[in-house]
Amino acid sequence: LHPAPVDRLINELGKLPGIGRRTAQRLAFHILRSDDAEAFALADALREVKEAIGLCERCFNLAEGDLCRICSTPSRQQSVICVVEEPQDVIPIERTGEYRGLYHVLGGALSPIDGIDPEDLKIAELVARVGDETVQEIVIATNPTTTGEATAHHIAERVRAERPGLSLTRLASGLPVGADLEHADEVTLGRAFSGRRAVV
Amino acid sequence: LHPAPVDRLINELGKLPGIGRRTAQRLAFHILRSDDAEAFALADALREVKEAIGLCERCFNLAEGDLCRICSTPSRQQSVICVVEEPQDVIPIERTGEYRGLYHVLGGALSPIDGIDPEDLKIAELVARVGDETVQEIVIATNPTTTGEATAHHIAERVRAERPGLSLTRLASGLPVGADLEHADEVTLGRAFSGRRAVV
Repeated sequence: LHPAPVDRLINELGKLPGIGRRTAQRLAFHILRSDDAEAFALADALREVKEAIGLCERCFNLAEGDLCRICSTPSRQQSVICVVEEPQDVIPIERTGEYRGLYHVLGGALSPIDGIDPEDLKIAELVARVGDETVQEIVIATNPTTTGEATAHHIAERVRAERPGLSLTRLASGLPVGADLEHADEVTLGRAFSGRRAVV
Repeated sequence: LHPAPVDRLINELGKLPGIGRRTAQRLAFHILRSDDAEAFALADALREVKEAIGLCERCFNLAEGDLCRICSTPSRQQSVICVVEEPQDVIPIERTGEYRGLYHVLGGALSPIDGIDPEDLKIAELVARVGDETVQEIVIATNPTTTGEATAHHIAERVRAERPGLSLTRLASGLPVGADLEHADEVTLGRAFSGRRAVV
């Protein structure tokens, strides 16, 4: 019932995650109503992001050139590597302002059910980086989920096999700041107990 | 913290209605992960829709050429014009399969508060079409909302001034099929009463 180009736009918008047919239709009609410039700016941004953005050769974070912004900053601490699942995990860590080291982006988490095995992630590449004596610590910052934990264990084993003495840490898991005990789930509360620290 | 092209994409996506910054970020990272072809297809669809789609010269529905698909179908009943607010209102009416006439898309509804006056809608164009003796009936199908009703009244007056004898109808308002009385709002139920019909 729509002219073909409108249908095409609705279909393409509907392929985006979390955008159902109704939302896609609403967005398409918004685009039809709005300025050409707005639609063209979005079209250009889509093209540009695919043409200009690749993965960092070293850490597999998003990069505009061969190396990402962090790997190309010489003042970053070269002795610590923080291992995360996805490029978007780097952002909240950078925002804390607490971390001055490097990253290693795995590109996902191990999930045999979904067919995601160690070879599908940048694990061999991490092990290769660990072979370099400059590296003094690996901070494993995969998500505190089943797949994230499995990935953390696997990485710990592989890194230990390569550099037995290397310092390996994992981000603390426990109650989020500002949360109340009453509404905490059992697993989080259990973690908060097992990870309890001496009061100083 | 993101490379500039990623930020640009997040900004452009965030301009779409109902898409906040978090959703825009999630969509951008989905696009980064997915095939180039998918992003390019969306970019092309955006360009194409703005380049190929305009408004029908006659009824102001969406059109790929000078006339929309409905105006260029000679088998449509030329004597009835159904007046709607937006191009997307044509779709559900066409889906009913009940209507075989033409349309007139106003491009919105009167709303003095939002600065939408008669001159901002295609009302003069409707009056001009009504001047043609072929037209036998105008079905007013603006939304059953405050602005839709105000628009319907205004159109009725203007059309009557132009063609005093012309048949003017309004879509029935009442209980939606499948709804129950218990949950009907008062206004809808009031309409259902005032619009009650003889049982046959």
